[in-house]
Amino acid sequence: MSKMHLEKNRLKNPLVHCITNYVTVNDVANMLIACGGAPIMADEAAEVEEMTAICDALVLNIGTLNERTVDSMMLAGRKASELGHPVVLDPVGAGATKLRTETALKLIKEIPMAVIRGNISEIMTLYHGTGSTKGVDASIGDTVTEDNLDEKISLARGLSKNTGAVVAITGAIDIIADGTAAYIVRNGHPMMSKVSGTGCMLTAVIASYVSANPEEMAGACATAIAAMGLSGEIAYERLMKSGGGPSTYRSFIIDAMGNMTSTELEGGMKIEVR
Amino acid sequence: MSKMHLEKNRLKNPLVHCITNYVTVNDVANMLIACGGAPIMADEAAEVEEMTAICDALVLNIGTLNERTVDSMMLAGRKASELGHPVVLDPVGAGATKLRTETALKLIKEIPMAVIRGNISEIMTLYHGTGSTKGVDASIGDTVTEDNLDEKISLARGLSKNTGAVVAITGAIDIIADGTAAYIVRNGHPMMSKVSGTGCMLTAVIASYVSANPEEMAGACATAIAAMGLSGEIAYERLMKSGGGPSTYRSFIIDAMGNMTSTELEGGMKIEVR
Amino acid sequence: MSKMHLEKNRLKNPLVHCITNYVTVNDVANMLIACGGAPIMADEAAEVEEMTAICDALVLNIGTLNERTVDSMMLAGRKASELGHPVVLDPVGAGATKLRTETALKLIKEIPMAVIRGNISEIMTLYHGTGSTKGVDASIGDTVTEDNLDEKISLARGLSKNTGAVVAITGAIDIIADGTAAYIVRNGHPMMSKVSGTGCMLTAVIASYVSANPEEMAGACATAIAAMGLSGEIAYERLMKSGGGPSTYRSFIIDAMGNMTSTELEGGMKIEVR
Repeated sequence: MSKMHLEKNRLKNPLVHCITNYVTVNDVANMLIACGGAPIMADEAAEVEEMTAICDALVLNIGTLNERTVDSMMLAGRKASELGHPVVLDPVGAGATKLRTETALKLIKEIPMAVIRGNISEIMTLYHGTGSTKGVDASIGDTVTEDNLDEKISLARGLSKNTGAVVAITGAIDIIADGTAAYIVRNGHPMMSKVSGTGCMLTAVIASYVSANPEEMAGACATAIAAMGLSGEIAYERLMKSGGGPSTYRSFIIDAMGNMTSTELEGGMKIEVR
Repeated sequence: MSKMHLEKNRLKNPLVHCITNYVTVNDVANMLIACGGAPIMADEAAEVEEMTAICDALVLNIGTLNERTVDSMMLAGRKASELGHPVVLDPVGAGATKLRTETALKLIKEIPMAVIRGNISEIMTLYHGTGSTKGVDASIGDTVTEDNLDEKISLARGLSKNTGAVVAITGAIDIIADGTAAYIVRNGHPMMSKVSGTGCMLTAVIASYVSANPEEMAGACATAIAAMGLSGEIAYERLMKSGGGPSTYRSFIIDAMGNMTSTELEGGMKIEVR
Repeated sequence: MSKMHLEKNRLKNPLVHCITNYVTVNDVANMLIACGGAPIMADEAAEVEEMTAICDALVLNIGTLNERTVDSMMLAGRKASELGHPVVLDPVGAGATKLRTETALKLIKEIPMAVIRGNISEIMTLYHGTGSTKGVDASIGDTVTEDNLDEKISLARGLSKNTGAVVAITGAIDIIADGTAAYIVRNGHPMMSKVSGTGCMLTAVIASYVSANPEEMAGACATAIAAMGLSGEIAYERLMKSGGGPSTYRSFIIDAMGNMTSTELEGGMKIEVR
């Protein structure tokens, strides 16, 4: 199944419109190309509806939101959803400020999301309608562990029920849930937390994958997350052989995604279906 | 000739003011330094005229245009042209949205451009005053091939005649034309399409080269394009030896430009004069 | 002492709010993580006070300032200073345009800065209240040399006296001064000037270090500068062994900061106390 998700994504080469933050936008663009998609960034209200109309999917990432771009997100989100394009939300820092929490809540209220991907603190904030987090990283107290996994799956299911979206909670252990299925992904490497923007990159990869596999959104989302985690693992092995640190590692992650074959993915992915 | 263009560029170290998109801006800055120029980014209306006045050339790139920055582009463009600085336009995504098409058309109408560099779809849009394109990449139906080369050269010449600018159509085969000469450049590597921003980087390199070689704008533009393509070839060879994927390749392209000698360029460039 | 600064920084893992330019922001984020801090970027007036309140330090970098973000800098700066968080100013391009000079002067007038870090031209502009510079690089005539070192230390001391901030002038030789002490740092490598954003990255590292070592701000600032320079030296050695150019070098600098131990720093730093 995952093999097919990767192959379809490379075959369809989805064009993904991203309204995203300026911190990690270049890595998002290059990771999108690496995974098999294609990026377009456009955030001006006067053009976002027209731009999103020629695309296959839309990413809304609130990492450096401002009044102007939030308006553009609303416009693009409505148009994309009207056209049946999957919209993927990355609620960066929801819970950290009122503006981020309210913007994220407004976006999920007014736009039917295909996927919402965040860390555990961000997803808890969206579920409870309020929250707190240490900036853009998950609060340590919230971490998903093997012990509290069932509880966190329920959380993902709850937000999925409320929104209709596939909900992905990513971290050391990843949870993907929709109304019926839940997937646990155990790929990845701790050093990925030393690279800024792995979450933003992943969100864009998810948008590409779900666009190419619309009949299996939750499954394709799990595959995208496994592919990203596996890229981190492959990159880490290469880093250990060649030497280097976090910046070389960042490049190696994108390289690994660019070189990944469906056979490699099938052999390395660790997806559990619950 | 090309050898001299590179040497003059390194010697003069032109300061290039860039009003450019936030997706690829860091690669543009580093590529400018690598080629022998120096970058300044400034996009606020209140300062762009003053900033461009202390520079040697101006790049206008509409990749993530917005109302505010389009105003700044007009102000900076008029001032630079008034001072005799070469202005280089990169009409990213012209044809994809009305805003982009109209902005690009307005810019070439009101500001005398030294060079316009785009992919074939963007240049066709500027020539015909309307167009369509798949986002920021050229439409496949428009691709420049050995078979339709004469027709595409005519297009470049036509836009050059209408605007007074050197027109560069870049892709697998590159065309550079002004009112009198036309150059065909056959450097580059297909893998360059796996790196976001090679076009934006090239535009900035062109601005640096034409600023350092004002008496031979079209020739210097062709040299800059050959240097970029050759960087892609050298980087690819290095990538094949060392292993890696698209992100490593991106770094290697900038490295190759940084290390390029005029002798290396002369030996590797493939410029045909027509 | 420096050893302790590094260790405390890694231990405290300060959260640094950056209102910074979009050219080098990704490198700033990754360098902050590499040094032991954590980045948050947020520049919208509606959220910057709330965001800075959950952080440990604030960076104000005017590299691509605009009207909207200058307002946000004022709001965030006042709030951070009210809360006793160190605020670090990077007056990129002060002296190049009236807007930059006036903004930098306004910021140091209204917000008590913990550290001001700039190149010699920028610091001279802030000291004299006016100035001229070739864009974002220091003017050659101003360069700090062994011959004029005393004079430049006096300049740093003068600006420190006027503002209450630790003043850091960075270049081939670095000067750090507050009201009482002065440090000269002789780490670094000339090739660092081939990488865009080393100054911006350094400013963020300084913010992290002074936040983790509030009782020794000037000393911690000197340590941060030595750590950055040493990273450039280590990266250069690695570059000479592995081959590559400016983009590989950029990655290696971040890698070196990420891998740096306190023992390595102690062995390699060249800090003179005056």
